[in-house]
Amino acid sequence: MDWNITERNQLTPQDIDRQGNKLLMGNGYIGYRGTLEEFNKEQKTATIVSGLYDKFGDQWREPVNLPNGCFVQVIYKGEALHALRSKLVIHSQSVDMYNAVHTRETTFQASDGSCITIRSRRFASLARRHLICMEYSISVDPACEVDICTGIDGDVWDINGPHLKETEARVQDDIISVYAVTHENAVPIAVSEVVVLPLEDKNETINESFRKFHQVQVQSPVTFHKFVSHLTGIEEENLLASSRKLCTQAASLGFDKLLEEHTALWSQRWNTCDIQIQGDEQAQQALRFSLYHLLSIVPTHTEHASIPARGMSGQMYKGATFWDTEIFILPFFVQNFPDLARNLLLYRYHTLDGARRKAQEYGYRGAFYAWESQDTGDDACTLFNVTDVFTNRPMRTYFRDKQVHISADLVYAFWNYFSLTGDSSIWHDGGAEVVFECARFFLSYIYFNPDKHRYEVLDVTGPDEYHERVHNNAYTNRMVANTFDVCHKVAAHLQQNSPGFFGELKSALDFESDLACINDIMPDLYLPDSNPTDYLIPQFDNYFTLEDLQLDALIGRKLHPHEYFGGGNGLATTTQIIKQADVVLMLYLFSERYSLETKSMNWQYYERRTEHGSSLSPCSYSIIAAQIGNVDWAYKYFMKTATIDLTGVGKQYVGTLYIGGTHPAGNAGAWMSAVFGLCGIHCMDKTVYIKPNLPEHWTQVILPFSVHGQKLKITITRRDVTIECIDFLKIPLSVSIGDNSYPLSTGKNNFQLEAKSQIVEE
Amino acid sequence: MDWNITERNQLTPQDIDRQGNKLLMGNGYIGYRGTLEEFNKEQKTATIVSGLYDKFGDQWREPVNLPNGCFVQVIYKGEALHALRSKLVIHSQSVDMYNAVHTRETTFQASDGSCITIRSRRFASLARRHLICMEYSISVDPACEVDICTGIDGDVWDINGPHLKETEARVQDDIISVYAVTHENAVPIAVSEVVVLPLEDKNETINESFRKFHQVQVQSPVTFHKFVSHLTGIEEENLLASSRKLCTQAASLGFDKLLEEHTALWSQRWNTCDIQIQGDEQAQQALRFSLYHLLSIVPTHTEHASIPARGMSGQMYKGATFWDTEIFILPFFVQNFPDLARNLLLYRYHTLDGARRKAQEYGYRGAFYAWESQDTGDDACTLFNVTDVFTNRPMRTYFRDKQVHISADLVYAFWNYFSLTGDSSIWHDGGAEVVFECARFFLSYIYFNPDKHRYEVLDVTGPDEYHERVHNNAYTNRMVANTFDVCHKVAAHLQQNSPGFFGELKSALDFESDLACINDIMPDLYLPDSNPTDYLIPQFDNYFTLEDLQLDALIGRKLHPHEYFGGGNGLATTTQIIKQADVVLMLYLFSERYSLETKSMNWQYYERRTEHGSSLSPCSYSIIAAQIGNVDWAYKYFMKTATIDLTGVGKQYVGTLYIGGTHPAGNAGAWMSAVFGLCGIHCMDKTVYIKPNLPEHWTQVILPFSVHGQKLKITITRRDVTIECIDFLKIPLSVSIGDNSYPLSTGKNNFQLEAKSQIVEE
Repeated sequence: MDWNITERNQLTPQDIDRQGNKLLMGNGYIGYRGTLEEFNKEQKTATIVSGLYDKFGDQWREPVNLPNGCFVQVIYKGEALHALRSKLVIHSQSVDMYNAVHTRETTFQASDGSCITIRSRRFASLARRHLICMEYSISVDPACEVDICTGIDGDVWDINGPHLKETEARVQDDIISVYAVTHENAVPIAVSEVVVLPLEDKNETINESFRKFHQVQVQSPVTFHKFVSHLTGIEEENLLASSRKLCTQAASLGFDKLLEEHTALWSQRWNTCDIQIQGDEQAQQALRFSLYHLLSIVPTHTEHASIPARGMSGQMYKGATFWDTEIFILPFFVQNFPDLARNLLLYRYHTLDGARRKAQEYGYRGAFYAWESQDTGDDACTLFNVTDVFTNRPMRTYFRDKQVHISADLVYAFWNYFSLTGDSSIWHDGGAEVVFECARFFLSYIYFNPDKHRYEVLDVTGPDEYHERVHNNAYTNRMVANTFDVCHKVAAHLQQNSPGFFGELKSALDFESDLACINDIMPDLYLPDSNPTDYLIPQFDNYFTLEDLQLDALIGRKLHPHEYFGGGNGLATTTQIIKQADVVLMLYLFSERYSLETKSMNWQYYERRTEHGSSLSPCSYSIIAAQIGNVDWAYKYFMKTATIDLTGVGKQYVGTLYIGGTHPAGNAGAWMSAVFGLCGIHCMDKTVYIKPNLPEHWTQVILPFSVHGQKLKITITRRDVTIECIDFLKIPLSVSIGDNSYPLSTGKNNFQLEAKSQIVEE
Repeated sequence: MDWNITERNQLTPQDIDRQGNKLLMGNGYIGYRGTLEEFNKEQKTATIVSGLYDKFGDQWREPVNLPNGCFVQVIYKGEALHALRSKLVIHSQSVDMYNAVHTRETTFQASDGSCITIRSRRFASLARRHLICMEYSISVDPACEVDICTGIDGDVWDINGPHLKETEARVQDDIISVYAVTHENAVPIAVSEVVVLPLEDKNETINESFRKFHQVQVQSPVTFHKFVSHLTGIEEENLLASSRKLCTQAASLGFDKLLEEHTALWSQRWNTCDIQIQGDEQAQQALRFSLYHLLSIVPTHTEHASIPARGMSGQMYKGATFWDTEIFILPFFVQNFPDLARNLLLYRYHTLDGARRKAQEYGYRGAFYAWESQDTGDDACTLFNVTDVFTNRPMRTYFRDKQVHISADLVYAFWNYFSLTGDSSIWHDGGAEVVFECARFFLSYIYFNPDKHRYEVLDVTGPDEYHERVHNNAYTNRMVANTFDVCHKVAAHLQQNSPGFFGELKSALDFESDLACINDIMPDLYLPDSNPTDYLIPQFDNYFTLEDLQLDALIGRKLHPHEYFGGGNGLATTTQIIKQADVVLMLYLFSERYSLETKSMNWQYYERRTEHGSSLSPCSYSIIAAQIGNVDWAYKYFMKTATIDLTGVGKQYVGTLYIGGTHPAGNAGAWMSAVFGLCGIHCMDKTVYIKPNLPEHWTQVILPFSVHGQKLKITITRRDVTIECIDFLKIPLSVSIGDNSYPLSTGKNNFQLEAKSQIVEE
């Protein structure tokens, strides 16, 4: 099996943008785009550090792109060798996913006919998060002297920049450092770079505005190393000295030692989470590629940062965290890296005050979480998110004000973490406060319909953003009910296990009477999905009265290729065409609530009315398709979400605004589709339910699964399921296969599968 | 004083459209546009009959334009004399408002140099509503023979036609008749026409498709008469015979006799309602012109029709009745013609089932009245009312679904009628049922906010249509509160005066428990205008957070001269710029609730943010300006509303759709501005409050006013007020002037005025 993702000879601007995302490397602190060493801001080089945001003037607040310490330009006889401007004999660029190393090999033909080959390897050290390490080799045929220009390029790509001011560059002990501060909060940053050459023949320093380089003459063939450190004032005080020290340390350890400790950690990661698929090389690679990206961007060092919607691939989507993290990304981490999942959850606790401010701004109580959350939890989402293609005017959208489900999504995620890990410390460390404040928000948001004797959730935008400001969105109402339910369960849990803490918390939050209210209200909350005889669930009030037409017909009505389907006058708004899974997402999230008939009816109804205008959409359709036995569609949607950043298709620009980047939720959706959908595994009350729905050509899947810290290795073939308890079985666990349930024993447990029956045939 | 409105030599297409409205004649059954006799559908001739609607295919349902029986074409030596195509020496067209007679005088110069003068007089008989009578004179210099072609032109102007099928024309006893049926409900119609010439020399019948004419040769000078009768199957059965009989009767009575009975009735009308203004000829004429139009279109013969928003000037606005009638038009009739006001109110009772159907359609109970009401009360309003100028697509608007205030507007009008006339039979004859069902509708519409412990009115569009789907629109909430209050008062009134009837009605409507609910809810309904210390009233939740800019600045943002300010992406929707009086209308309707400070603050705030994109807007600003002592603005807005159809400025077309026509609510707004605003008169609990705010140049105003059937003649000068009780004073009445209140006596009562203090100076 090949762990490499390789691109050859693709160097159109579109390819460069796509490869910048696809071949990204990261360690959760630094994200570095998959660009070439001689590239600059024109090719969207970017070094994003977790948790650092800046706002310049009245532009959008976004992550800071640090000066690029990885810049290397080879100059052969005065000719700068550049993959876009020079003649290429051969060129390839790849990522070794297993070791998380980016490699590049290019053979240039200079104007005198000589061939110059460049090879580089680089990685963002998982052991030392501030460090990027690079090995760079040059060989010329025939051998000769070449010049290298390398250092720090501070002339960075910005979407809403510039973000750095008071930039100072200096050289001390052959280490180049660039120091600057951000505009909004004057947070200092420092990038230092040291070059370790076999010969000491550095000879010149080049200073351009924002750029500082060594120019060195070397004799080919030559291999040298660069170590670049990145620090911000968020963590450190004495930045310049610290960043230089990191370079010196790295140089003394050397590239090989640093690579060794890096790959050892990555190897551990893969041992923990890898899924082996036999019989489908493409699916295997796409799934691993998805996990590679998730692992590259998850913060390991802090509870104060989360995963942005476009990962660490740049400033797109303002570097903000959306509900993507809690609903789509978190399950992978809860299963495989519960400590990291816990960090991601506690990020929401640390941004609770921002959510309180937002609730207050809109006249509510409790916590109304940001639709687009950055470091403070204040909402980075604007009221105008789309540009009208017909008038070029900003279009009022109701993402910020009306997607109230965000607060419920968090609560869902906290409970999901707790129920799968059993880690009740999460409630003490902030989780209970988040849950209570979110429940309180909905308490202040809902209305009682005296005529129908029920509470309703009015004027919301559900996951389907093409229908804004609807009433009683089935998903949102169900999530609000779940929020109240989790609130009730957390309260009961704390009452039983930590009454002192609970009492203090209730008192600190003045939550006693609200809690009583919530318990009162719960039974009377209207749930559009609660009538078991109405299989078809209306996405919101009067949804079925909207115009019903084919997606193609709607697309045929477009007058402009980029016109937005939603917003004020959007084509989809008056129809039943939806942007993304909404009811079907609910069917997955509360899978145990719905009959197969309900799932089947709704999947079939909504699937043909869904545009999948969001990368969050396919996984829900995959999972439910698998559950209703429609394996072909389950596989199709699995591959759609698993290859989203492999193919890199999808919208890259809105006007001149770059909105491309990686899709962590889509990556994680691939994991969910594989595990929950195709492998048919889920867990409830310490019982693992397995009902495999493998595609015909998948002969075997081996995957890890854990329940309350107990690690299992599950092997699924077409005939049987084997569950191996990797450690000694410390807690009683059961497995449910077919109609039967069995207790698990330490060691291997084998279960035969019955022939499957298909619920839905297309 | 000149009672004539005259237009001279204005014959561009725009002039013809405008004069068609301005010089309209009508008797409440027939409306006939102010066009010339030789005109046809190109010049928008129209004969609209009250209450007859038709829908062709899937087009908009609209009034039927009957075949035109007033057509006359003079042919001089083979040359058809036509005001648009022939050479004119002199031309004028006018309406004698006092007698409600349309006249025309045109001198043509034929190609041989001869001058031919045509004079016509015509009127829609107020004594015989089916009849239009015409006198037509021709004199040629030098005298000679001319041909006349006259008869019935069935090739009519239609906006969403054709509406007539199976058209048959026949001649019997020299009477031409056209018979047809409507498309939708096969309602028959018949138009008959007889020509009375001094000599019996008819010689030919001309038949074109849809047109049937006599062609007659006459010796000039000549004067002849035409009598045209119009009947529909709504009233009559034997249409053809009846319509011929009406012509025969008319011919035997003769033009002069018919004119006499017509003008006698009109003279009575003017004696009842005329307002005499001394010192301002322009205002005098504009006000009389406004009343002329109101009198011309008010149905006198039925409770089953109301006044359409564009009067009887054509098929514009679907011939539908809006809230215009109840809130703006009705006060004039309640004061001057309470029987006609009663008819207009009972129209709403007869369309109650339509309102019940609409409520049910949207999942509510009670009566949700049509935003655009025709004969059945079903809503003629579509979901898409505006065409997007950028995409040419229909734009979703929330007039039909969200302007729930319509039901409350009716209730306000019913109570207003009752409190001013004392006519409690209105409750027995349907009024109570309307009030109860409207209250029940709001009972099913409102929501309880458990967090704020109040009932709210969510997701509505208030009078300001540029802000759709808002919460707690101050106007709407106040009107809902008023609905509950009126419901309560009507119930109490009936309980006391007609307990048997009340018991049966409650039982028939199953209203007992709803009535109890309404009484419970009333005190907890949230009213944004209820805090007496917050002078500035928010038009709706969060209105003040919207962008605040000058109207000019907003207009400057337009990219297309006809782009709509409201709807999905409208420029005004995200700003504080409003279409029309909303809070200020409420200040007028509940004038006694608000302090002068509140009125002044809100008038000043909203006045500069109002576009007056509706003809309903100026009168509220006039009345409140007068109340706060800002007479200049009160006069300015009075003249704006009083001249709306005199000047005929304002939007006439949306794309190719003609939306011009008369503005009865604007006409009635002139009356309200004069009486309630400038004269400062209102009545409450049998006390007439008078606080005149006359413009400097108005030396005296004489106007009628009536309270519970007691007719008063009020004379206001700059120094004093005289109130004459025209009949013997049958009920005790008081007058409040300045800070004092006095009982009225039979005969003349004179009161001196104190020097005024201005509250607001601009």
